[in-house]
Amino acid sequence: MSHQSRQRALGDIFGDNLILDDQKQLARYGVDQVGDQAYARTPLAVVFPTTTAQVAALMRWANQSATPVTPRGGGSGLAGAAIPAAGGVVCSFERMNRIIEIDTQNLMVVVEPGVVTSRLDDELEPHGLFFAGYPMSEDICCIGGNVAENAGGGRAVKYGTTAAYVLGAEVVTPTGEVLQLGGKRLKDVTGYSLLQLMIGSEGTLGLFTRLVIRVVPRPAARAVLFCAFPDSAGACTGVAELKRSRALSSIEFIDGQTARRTNEGLPSAQRTALPEQADAFLLVELDGADETEVARESDAARRVIETAGGTLVLTGTDQPSMERAWKLRKAVPWWTKRIAGSYHSLEDVVVPPAAIPALVVFCEHLRSEYRVPIAVFGHAGDGNFHITPMKPAAMAPEEWSTTIDRLLRELYGHVADLGGTISGEHGIGRKRTGYLSLALGNQEIALMRTIKRALDPNNVLNPGVALPNASLDGESHVG
Amino acid sequence: MSHQSRQRALGDIFGDNLILDDQKQLARYGVDQVGDQAYARTPLAVVFPTTTAQVAALMRWANQSATPVTPRGGGSGLAGAAIPAAGGVVCSFERMNRIIEIDTQNLMVVVEPGVVTSRLDDELEPHGLFFAGYPMSEDICCIGGNVAENAGGGRAVKYGTTAAYVLGAEVVTPTGEVLQLGGKRLKDVTGYSLLQLMIGSEGTLGLFTRLVIRVVPRPAARAVLFCAFPDSAGACTGVAELKRSRALSSIEFIDGQTARRTNEGLPSAQRTALPEQADAFLLVELDGADETEVARESDAARRVIETAGGTLVLTGTDQPSMERAWKLRKAVPWWTKRIAGSYHSLEDVVVPPAAIPALVVFCEHLRSEYRVPIAVFGHAGDGNFHITPMKPAAMAPEEWSTTIDRLLRELYGHVADLGGTISGEHGIGRKRTGYLSLALGNQEIALMRTIKRALDPNNVLNPGVALPNASLDGESHVG
Repeated sequence: MSHQSRQRALGDIFGDNLILDDQKQLARYGVDQVGDQAYARTPLAVVFPTTTAQVAALMRWANQSATPVTPRGGGSGLAGAAIPAAGGVVCSFERMNRIIEIDTQNLMVVVEPGVVTSRLDDELEPHGLFFAGYPMSEDICCIGGNVAENAGGGRAVKYGTTAAYVLGAEVVTPTGEVLQLGGKRLKDVTGYSLLQLMIGSEGTLGLFTRLVIRVVPRPAARAVLFCAFPDSAGACTGVAELKRSRALSSIEFIDGQTARRTNEGLPSAQRTALPEQADAFLLVELDGADETEVARESDAARRVIETAGGTLVLTGTDQPSMERAWKLRKAVPWWTKRIAGSYHSLEDVVVPPAAIPALVVFCEHLRSEYRVPIAVFGHAGDGNFHITPMKPAAMAPEEWSTTIDRLLRELYGHVADLGGTISGEHGIGRKRTGYLSLALGNQEIALMRTIKRALDPNNVLNPGVALPNASLDGESHVG
Repeated sequence: MSHQSRQRALGDIFGDNLILDDQKQLARYGVDQVGDQAYARTPLAVVFPTTTAQVAALMRWANQSATPVTPRGGGSGLAGAAIPAAGGVVCSFERMNRIIEIDTQNLMVVVEPGVVTSRLDDELEPHGLFFAGYPMSEDICCIGGNVAENAGGGRAVKYGTTAAYVLGAEVVTPTGEVLQLGGKRLKDVTGYSLLQLMIGSEGTLGLFTRLVIRVVPRPAARAVLFCAFPDSAGACTGVAELKRSRALSSIEFIDGQTARRTNEGLPSAQRTALPEQADAFLLVELDGADETEVARESDAARRVIETAGGTLVLTGTDQPSMERAWKLRKAVPWWTKRIAGSYHSLEDVVVPPAAIPALVVFCEHLRSEYRVPIAVFGHAGDGNFHITPMKPAAMAPEEWSTTIDRLLRELYGHVADLGGTISGEHGIGRKRTGYLSLALGNQEIALMRTIKRALDPNNVLNPGVALPNASLDGESHVG
């Protein structure tokens, strides 16, 4: 298809809401937050729908013209799912960003996919409500992307992941039809769970154009305990014991070295005094219906931490103290990126909770086996760890590239042996398609492919994401 | 296929674990708990697998021989999903009933599908754990059926439905392949949510042969408040206010007349003194971490009830008081069945919580419009009501049959207008396939059919359930 005819077709649908010629602007839509710049690919065009009908028209045109379409929210993904792997058109939802309804009677909201997650939180706060399934990137991610990836986050140990909060969705299919799935109801077994099939399908089975999300009462009281452990084993014991508290809303793990280096990289006013000897840190958050409950649970948590050999570094129920602790935790992935640039790999493995100590010990083995520094941090309560190997300064990029591939294969294989899997919240995206067979059997991958083909016969919606591109396997598909 | 060749093929797979000739035994597997006996259909054979390999071999044979297969657990379904609509073979999981593992470290169990739900509860009790997603029929239903229907139950208002607790499953596909979906992990975004697609698919997309279920700490304290309201509007106000309590684990609604008649039908020692004037009753259950918390929440609930115009009929924290209240609630569907026999229709509509008062008022309209008694009861906290029209003694069966069809069409249409749907936990089964288009659009039904065809090209797994049988629409399919 020529540039002119594409321009005409997309102009007919989107008017001025598109980018076609500005290469610098187009390039901005060819990356997300995945570490490796090798995934970058500039799209031919970016379109900004403001209505569902435009999205449906786009997909009909995509099928006619065999043009790949990649949906995109905030571009905060960590596995390349919003990068146009096969070129074509990026469909950015940033102008479909209305909060349509805050339904305080039913405790539900109706939103468009381009709403930035923290904006929804700001709007919910005066009503004493919040969206509990939000991920750590709430300041930049969009609700549509949260749902497309089934995002988790720092509070999933208590509140679960995004999927638990999505009650309904309007979805445009790969062939341009509009589905109404679920709705404002707390139970629904009418028909197959097409809604749950769409959630977490990484923009490969449909495009969300409207969402019904369940929200919950904001906890009246919170407390944070940031604590240091002389060794990881003690921290793991602490995790297992702390999980018994019903008030527990977060347990984040950061290895000692990573916490200290990240802390040193913060502006001096934001730094926390961290003990040099500690091998592991836990950020523990509790929430509850009132301050008495949280104070009682906080005392109990403190005793658990001390029994497990930990010491409190920072504790507080005031907003600044809590923010200081979270700032350190949230800065960790930025620190790994700053020191290793494109040459780091932010992983997202998950293991059964009882296998957490084995996973942490295995990271020690990986460090010495591959001679690379590895930051170990993440959502310990769920067994979901962001293990992040980084290229040592002295290692050549070519050696890094073979090293990280071998390391990931060993890590993923070990995680599978422990009963875990390769992604808990970031997704397969483009980054992990080549490793999918380490986590899923041939039958499961074949069934995914059967479903993808049934919904997207011309393979035009986000090809190359979630599943290895069929054309790479010698199968013939448009796009 | 002749009887002899079927006998040989099934005997090769199942040995003595089958019924082929005993018509009386076969007929027992041709019904479930759906009211209308018109759904009954005796299968040609019943097989009792004890291994996954046998289930896979059965499905391969079913495809070769074009024989429909209907999976069955406890036969407690209320919509005919376990009745062999197209004849063929019933695959009963009653001998695949092992509790393989109670994993107290990970708070998960691994079970076979034929485990009776209350047996799992008995085994979990000594560990201080329970399976929170169980339905009201826990004494007869099986875990596999709970999962196949995404069952809800009396505690879903606090704990959610079965789907929220299923972490993994071994599934035999309609074509006889064995899938391993999910596992012992609290987060998993590796691949499409095939597990969630299978859950609630009513035995039409796969047969569960093993399940990984999340269990939770048993609440240390519980309290029940059974209360009477002079009118339904007051009870609805009570429901909305009581839902704010985090300790609330059940709010069951029973209309006044139905509660009194059910109560009169109980053995005298089990009866409760119910006020004659009350128009609605609520069974409220609270649970929590200790008796202090439950006592505090119980006092608060009592005040809410009184403010809404209700009076306490029965209250208690002891097992006998709680059992007495629940016995009355659980007896309601049996009472409707006893007085109306096959001529009653136990419905399962669900509406947004804010629409509960409108739904209750609408039932008054239906009673006077169609001149039939209607029991109104169910899980008010979720907006999920078991509205049960019953044939008046004087009405001829033929008139009942046209009346109930018209009544259901009006009810389903109104529920859809209120933002609800036709089934919250019982499923579509065979009973509601003809009404599916009142709840789902053509696009959604077409997508269900696309998925069904992709997984079950010969339409041999439970044809005629969940979706109208394609052959009835003039499409050609085996079976």
